[in-house]
Amino acid sequence: MIVRRYSDIKAQAVDMDGAKDVAKRVLVSEADGAPNFIMRQFIVEPGGYTPYHTHNWEHEIYVLSGRGQVLKHGGFNELEAGSVVFVAPNEEHGFENTGDEPLVFLCSIPK
Amino acid sequence: MIVRRYSDIKAQAVDMDGAKDVAKRVLVSEADGAPNFIMRQFIVEPGGYTPYHTHNWEHEIYVLSGRGQVLKHGGFNELEAGSVVFVAPNEEHGFENTGDEPLVFLCSIPK
Repeated sequence: MIVRRYSDIKAQAVDMDGAKDVAKRVLVSEADGAPNFIMRQFIVEPGGYTPYHTHNWEHEIYVLSGRGQVLKHGGFNELEAGSVVFVAPNEEHGFENTGDEPLVFLCSIPK
Repeated sequence: MIVRRYSDIKAQAVDMDGAKDVAKRVLVSEADGAPNFIMRQFIVEPGGYTPYHTHNWEHEIYVLSGRGQVLKHGGFNELEAGSVVFVAPNEEHGFENTGDEPLVFLCSIPK
């Protein structure tokens, strides 16, 4: 069993085309022995965003704090603490911080 | 894409041997099209606990609020908001609320 605090993991800047002011912590990974899926935490600073993109794996997301929007084909939805998002494989998506505090969310992906 | 609030999902009592004052919300499930893993939220009331047990699948856990302990072979660890727990397949575990508020955590499992 592994027990840690999220803050034990150093946040690393997400250096991707289309990302602005985003950092990531990998909270549980293959390196911990996770056999099927990986839990990450994203921190999007005010005014920041993740790339609007698509890929062939899913996201399961839980918003911990902050305010933002998830962009999708044809529109967007508002996000706040307690929001849950399922992004299916191959579905377009992007996250934006529209608030004054960091937008922090968990985002799990298959291994 | 599915966007909801956790509170849109009705919490259901966990009626298992060895559980006391525990409820669960299935936040993202196979019914939503999730292909690989399932995200649930557990609410353990003060004085409540989950069964001390084992099974052949893993847990990836993030504590949202409250205080508690995760029991493991030979001991336990304290939990609070921001705690991350990885329980490997076939590893003994149980969760107890040791505080005055509900202990609320996310717990994802493979499909």
